Amino acid sequence: MHNLIEKMFLPEFNSKESKVLHDSVELILKKKRVAFTTDSYVVNPLFFPGGDIGSLAIHGTVNDLAMSGAEPLYISTAFIIEEGLPMETMWRIVQSMKEAAKNTGVEIVTGDTKVVDKGKGDGIFINTSGIGIINHKLNINPASILPGDVIVINGDIGRHGIAIMAVREGLEFETTIESDSAPLNSIVKRLVDAGLDIHCMRDLTRGGLSSALVEIAQASKLGININEKNIPVAEDVRGACEILGFDPLYVANEGRFVTFLPDNQVQKALDILNSDKNAPEAHIIGKVSESNAGLVIMRSTIGATRIVDMLSGEQLPRIC
Amino acid sequence: MHNLIEKMFLPEFNSKESKVLHDSVELILKKKRVAFTTDSYVVNPLFFPGGDIGSLAIHGTVNDLAMSGAEPLYISTAFIIEEGLPMETMWRIVQSMKEAAKNTGVEIVTGDTKVVDKGKGDGIFINTSGIGIINHKLNINPASILPGDVIVINGDIGRHGIAIMAVREGLEFETTIESDSAPLNSIVKRLVDAGLDIHCMRDLTRGGLSSALVEIAQASKLGININEKNIPVAEDVRGACEILGFDPLYVANEGRFVTFLPDNQVQKALDILNSDKNAPEAHIIGKVSESNAGLVIMRSTIGATRIVDMLSGEQLPRIC
Repeated sequence: MHNLIEKMFLPEFNSKESKVLHDSVELILKKKRVAFTTDSYVVNPLFFPGGDIGSLAIHGTVNDLAMSGAEPLYISTAFIIEEGLPMETMWRIVQSMKEAAKNTGVEIVTGDTKVVDKGKGDGIFINTSGIGIINHKLNINPASILPGDVIVINGDIGRHGIAIMAVREGLEFETTIESDSAPLNSIVKRLVDAGLDIHCMRDLTRGGLSSALVEIAQASKLGININEKNIPVAEDVRGACEILGFDPLYVANEGRFVTFLPDNQVQKALDILNSDKNAPEAHIIGKVSESNAGLVIMRSTIGATRIVDMLSGEQLPRIC
Repeated sequence: MHNLIEKMFLPEFNSKESKVLHDSVELILKKKRVAFTTDSYVVNPLFFPGGDIGSLAIHGTVNDLAMSGAEPLYISTAFIIEEGLPMETMWRIVQSMKEAAKNTGVEIVTGDTKVVDKGKGDGIFINTSGIGIINHKLNINPASILPGDVIVINGDIGRHGIAIMAVREGLEFETTIESDSAPLNSIVKRLVDAGLDIHCMRDLTRGGLSSALVEIAQASKLGININEKNIPVAEDVRGACEILGFDPLYVANEGRFVTFLPDNQVQKALDILNSDKNAPEAHIIGKVSESNAGLVIMRSTIGATRIVDMLSGEQLPRIC
């Protein structure tokens, strides 16, 4: 099995620009400021509407780099395969990774494969680590946000988590809810290249929009005010959330992010975001304030205000 | 569980030199030539004489970087934890990684944790990816070896694989056979800094000494001649190999490597290698020739010669 995998993976991921050494790969980086990240993907099921574990493993790691404004360049892939995984399944996943890397403009440069005995894994787990270069002079992180900053979201929330749960629970809706899984590096590059003074970006993965905002409020020691009616949620996602008992604010996304930036630059950001084919539905969802430091306050659709908490209780397991 | 892990890991691996962004870490690299590698560790059992999955995950990735002569600097760690893994086990592994990183001089800068349901993993799997900088002008790879090059090994072979198998099979010997798991970056740095014209290095992990040499012979299209009596194997390891039906030439190591370099530089290399506290038993094991291109020929202890093959049949599973 091991040999077969190596024969399958190596030609597929054959790297042109990099020099493959025996155990590592040599890269020439054009910038000294480098971003580095890692994530393992254990999503169940392996295939879901709008994506699969392979494309997710590329998009997720690319997005983690993009959220610091880095330009993702190189990806490593490490597979932990449960004995007995059908070759056809593996082949589909490898093709999906290859395609996602190509569309995203990153190169898969090094990898590893381990096989575990049947019953000691679950089909396939994938780790991807990524290296990007930082071309800008911004400090994109929660500590950089300022009172008055406007918060922009690039599209509707809740798709990824609901797409997974619908498959897992065997639910059928009138339309198939597709994951929003998508690479964010190209749209982030356009925002950065436009010279926008971006203070913070964050993708809305585990824990959803709420957890991301609460973390940023806590880290920045500023308050965040959001308006529920401006947060886009598709009708079918809202319906599924009601059936499954989820709040869309806490459901994971894989192609959505928030950007914090000064008021006078928002229109330019919205124009860029709304021209993105992956998520042409950007909205202003809120603002940063000096009051209510460390808290996220939401004005609900019926006009009441409430404090938005971190997700209490269990996260949805194996959503990514 | 997830929260507990984050609380456990973050303070332990708290990074001083690097700037932790939300989803990735920013690093300042002093050189443009960079080595990048990834490996997942699924070793069973998690703890074995001479090491554990934690220290192995640091040493293995550090060694992959060192084999290109790179100076390993930064490591990412990603855990896939099976629900129900005792906290005490995880704590020991985290401490072991921290200790190994400290002793090796690398910094754990970013990480990820995923939890899978009971029965869908096996205790813990660890992925580490690593970044190193290349400070030398050498081309350390199989294509650089030349006829007449001498092959030096840094110590006795077979310890790691046998240490694992002995635990797994419940075998007891008069003395406990300990894994050779050790970081090789410091000894490699000394070889490189000594100005030696190193043509190739390779650590002798999966597939052991034989597989490493066969791969190099095939890649370089040159012949490799080795002498069995010069290949150090400890008596207890040899005995265990006989009981278990293994050939030490094919058993995995985690702290042994071969170096290919010109004849007139061998004594200097031996002097450096023999001053290493981890493996003070360096030997010349063979030579590169123009004849028998692509083959490894071994002169056995009884004077016969034979072609050394790649490991045929199954590798020992989950040895690393």
